[in-house]
Amino acid sequence: LTTYPTKALTGASHLLPSLFHRYRKYVERSLRSALDDGKSGLYQMLRYHIGLADGPVLQGKAVRPVLCLFASEASGGKWQNAMPAAVALELAHNFSLIHDDIQDGDIERRHRPTLWYLWGTPKALAAGNAMWAMADLALLKLAGYGVRSEVVLRASGVMTEGCLEMILGQHLDLSFEGRLDITVNDYMDMISKKTGALMDVSSRLGALIGNADPDTVSAFGRCGRLLGLVFQIRDDILGIWGDTKNTGKPMGNDIRKRKMTLPVVYTLEHASQATRKEIGRLFQKETLAEEEVTRIIAAMESVNAQRYSRILAKQKCSQALRAMGDISMQPWARKELEELSSFLLTREN
Amino acid sequence: LTTYPTKALTGASHLLPSLFHRYRKYVERSLRSALDDGKSGLYQMLRYHIGLADGPVLQGKAVRPVLCLFASEASGGKWQNAMPAAVALELAHNFSLIHDDIQDGDIERRHRPTLWYLWGTPKALAAGNAMWAMADLALLKLAGYGVRSEVVLRASGVMTEGCLEMILGQHLDLSFEGRLDITVNDYMDMISKKTGALMDVSSRLGALIGNADPDTVSAFGRCGRLLGLVFQIRDDILGIWGDTKNTGKPMGNDIRKRKMTLPVVYTLEHASQATRKEIGRLFQKETLAEEEVTRIIAAMESVNAQRYSRILAKQKCSQALRAMGDISMQPWARKELEELSSFLLTREN
Repeated sequence: LTTYPTKALTGASHLLPSLFHRYRKYVERSLRSALDDGKSGLYQMLRYHIGLADGPVLQGKAVRPVLCLFASEASGGKWQNAMPAAVALELAHNFSLIHDDIQDGDIERRHRPTLWYLWGTPKALAAGNAMWAMADLALLKLAGYGVRSEVVLRASGVMTEGCLEMILGQHLDLSFEGRLDITVNDYMDMISKKTGALMDVSSRLGALIGNADPDTVSAFGRCGRLLGLVFQIRDDILGIWGDTKNTGKPMGNDIRKRKMTLPVVYTLEHASQATRKEIGRLFQKETLAEEEVTRIIAAMESVNAQRYSRILAKQKCSQALRAMGDISMQPWARKELEELSSFLLTREN
Repeated sequence: LTTYPTKALTGASHLLPSLFHRYRKYVERSLRSALDDGKSGLYQMLRYHIGLADGPVLQGKAVRPVLCLFASEASGGKWQNAMPAAVALELAHNFSLIHDDIQDGDIERRHRPTLWYLWGTPKALAAGNAMWAMADLALLKLAGYGVRSEVVLRASGVMTEGCLEMILGQHLDLSFEGRLDITVNDYMDMISKKTGALMDVSSRLGALIGNADPDTVSAFGRCGRLLGLVFQIRDDILGIWGDTKNTGKPMGNDIRKRKMTLPVVYTLEHASQATRKEIGRLFQKETLAEEEVTRIIAAMESVNAQRYSRILAKQKCSQALRAMGDISMQPWARKELEELSSFLLTREN
């Protein structure tokens, strides 16, 4: 495993880079106005989910809008012109979260009760759908930002294909449940769809709207997808070994939920037949005793699953930066991309 | 209540008009090719739902594609150019059916087990989402059929807004559950969204692609929406008084499922306080005894709810034809529109 040498990988790289702060206020304002006018009770649910209903604070880091606006700016465009796409991406991501919570039966997200838990599955399902429709409508507003019809059409196609891939990834994830024969390759293919696709689309759309040439657009897409893998693997690590202080979740939380994350898949692939059977048996139980969670984590440590996951994430992070290696970029943009990658690799929550 | 005098309202108008047969083969072929290439298990679910997996027969009447292709042809366009929109509409409609079945807990549709019943809610939810993404991608193919980018963009906006309205309608329908204060006006507003919106979009898109002038496009939209109301009210009538031979469902089926359809809403608005309370009580029960179903139907008959529903449907049908009154149309097209309207008004299944 080779890694890209970057200074950004040292220091306080787990803190939100300045890049995030630059766009945040505007993303929040645009999201608010996208969801503001509807009087239907459904819009109330959307505002609650996004976090606009009960305070000024946008829930989540808005990684996708940031990636999109950054790619647009780094391509020499005005990031303001990419705002409709940034909003569309955040709405589409939140559509997937609302439906994921239904599919996984999760009763809490970002320390707040989930939509289906508060309003029931039928209405939450409709709310997710409305969120997706709002995303598509937001994207079409690009036409009012001086973007040519042909480019808006292409952006719309890229966005829809990305969402379809994300949905196929979610379906794949569901079909992994209860299977002990999933390999790391299977898993990487699944997260490339489930998480990578929309991150690919995020940076691809930014570059497209920033009028980048086709090679640059493709490179941004590849880079975004690889950063999606970094993001997801880091999520998997934090879901098991994350510090409760930072994540707000107890250690081993993903084990308790019997999620098939990278460390689990790797362990199943590398542990002894006996351990594999044991984990398989435990993953079929309705709930796990604390002692069983501890036993599974011990099995993971015994095959160095955490170390493997960290190295793989670092490798994907290097690949992401290498994808942009041949692309001409202003020094400030390359530095910010390194900071962004490094943050995704080392974040603590 | 005034009705539009038309010969088409007499005779065997409940049989599928020739219009349906003209497009059917092509719609089926295009739908098949839209869903054919995906190897993922998710596509299998989509093909099963549409009815392409277990035989050559397309499930359902494909009313929306027919309306779209007809509007395009009647506007002087080549109906073949509108095929991507026709396919998109049928896919979007089926997306809504897959999710409706989850929301309503229905275990059967068109005499076959529903997706969620066969594959579970999480996967069925993903399948519905994939169906919608396929719909959007199908629509974007208009660009390859000689339709200008600006028109494709507008079509995409019309389609997404229609889907959003449909979703808001479904949410409204869910929020009516268990309420005894819903008026006929509330109900008509709900079905105008839930059923009318996509029928509006169907004929609007056809006219748009057929290069009709803006007045004609709007008129087709209004006409389509009104036909959607006719379609839905007829559905409501058949759901209670339909002949088991034709509908494949026992009489009073919608009562058994405690659906808030027009005859129920009308009865609640016009029956005595005591009857209202009685129906409210029965509609809160988990299951209804046959004798209770009979009692509710008797209450409906006592306020002439069936007759009222028939007259209202006929009125909406007249309004639909009047919406096209000032629009210049070839005689064959006007005749076919009358046949189509009349079929929707009198169909037996």
